[in-house]
Amino acid sequence: MPESKYFQDHMPGNICFGCGRDNHQGLRISSQWNDGEAVCVWEPEEKYQGWRGLVNGGILATLVDCHCMCTSMAHAVRREDRSMDSSPYCRFATGQMKIRYLKPTPADRPVEVWARVVDIKDERKYTLQAEVWSGGRDGGEKVVEAEVISFLVFSSDNPDHGASPFGG
Amino acid sequence: MPESKYFQDHMPGNICFGCGRDNHQGLRISSQWNDGEAVCVWEPEEKYQGWRGLVNGGILATLVDCHCMCTSMAHAVRREDRSMDSSPYCRFATGQMKIRYLKPTPADRPVEVWARVVDIKDERKYTLQAEVWSGGRDGGEKVVEAEVISFLVFSSDNPDHGASPFGG
Repeated sequence: MPESKYFQDHMPGNICFGCGRDNHQGLRISSQWNDGEAVCVWEPEEKYQGWRGLVNGGILATLVDCHCMCTSMAHAVRREDRSMDSSPYCRFATGQMKIRYLKPTPADRPVEVWARVVDIKDERKYTLQAEVWSGGRDGGEKVVEAEVISFLVFSSDNPDHGASPFGG
Repeated sequence: MPESKYFQDHMPGNICFGCGRDNHQGLRISSQWNDGEAVCVWEPEEKYQGWRGLVNGGILATLVDCHCMCTSMAHAVRREDRSMDSSPYCRFATGQMKIRYLKPTPADRPVEVWARVVDIKDERKYTLQAEVWSGGRDGGEKVVEAEVISFLVFSSDNPDHGASPFGG
């Protein structure tokens, strides 16, 4: 069976509200590569509205945040030309997020989150640019722009980074 | 009966995931004045974890965002020395949020979100400073700092600002 293209299928024990396969009450996003960018498509649910008919801004921030953390992980292993399931596995945490809400986001159509790594410092600090498109980037509207800084906080070959946050 | 001190009790028809009294699957935050600042205390739930034992960063962003929008509304009417139930009523939307995650946020104790309006431009653009404290500001740890820009997007005495987002 070919390896799953979705980053989140390579994060066992992930209970995260935004991106955890093992959280059945969460957003359960699925991120994948599209050339040099990572994209995730997410269908709004009624309980995640802000104003009636619009997606809540904090939920949009959650999508951006989690998509960027998973993209950081996928980017780190791709730089080394290896599988997301190979060792060492690594996990990132958000240091900072700057998010601009450009337009209201309708709750009646899918949103796409796009992200790419634009800078890496000291192998540990990643900067990502992200956008959210309502109705998709192809024909839809850009509703959010964000810049996210992530930090490598765990690598399984370097215990000094601390214990695994997952599954324990 | 005295008027409720909680801002969200003065926002009828609010279905917002973060701050809506009428969303029974949401975070249902409650914000109130503490001198010149507004505070909200929130108890983490298991489904809103990021890593095991820690609160998800997007949920923290949602708390900050919604608390700041409700604080903007409360501040706007307090400037005019009138009740939150008096007319015109007004609602704010987030323009931008810059959020810094200083430390992991334990999921086993309450978080407090503090916010205050630090600048107002053209009566419509508010800037707020916010902090999240794990375990409370009195004896706990500061885990998040944020700057939020909100815009007055609806006032019931000025239909040019658009139709009410609530209840319709």
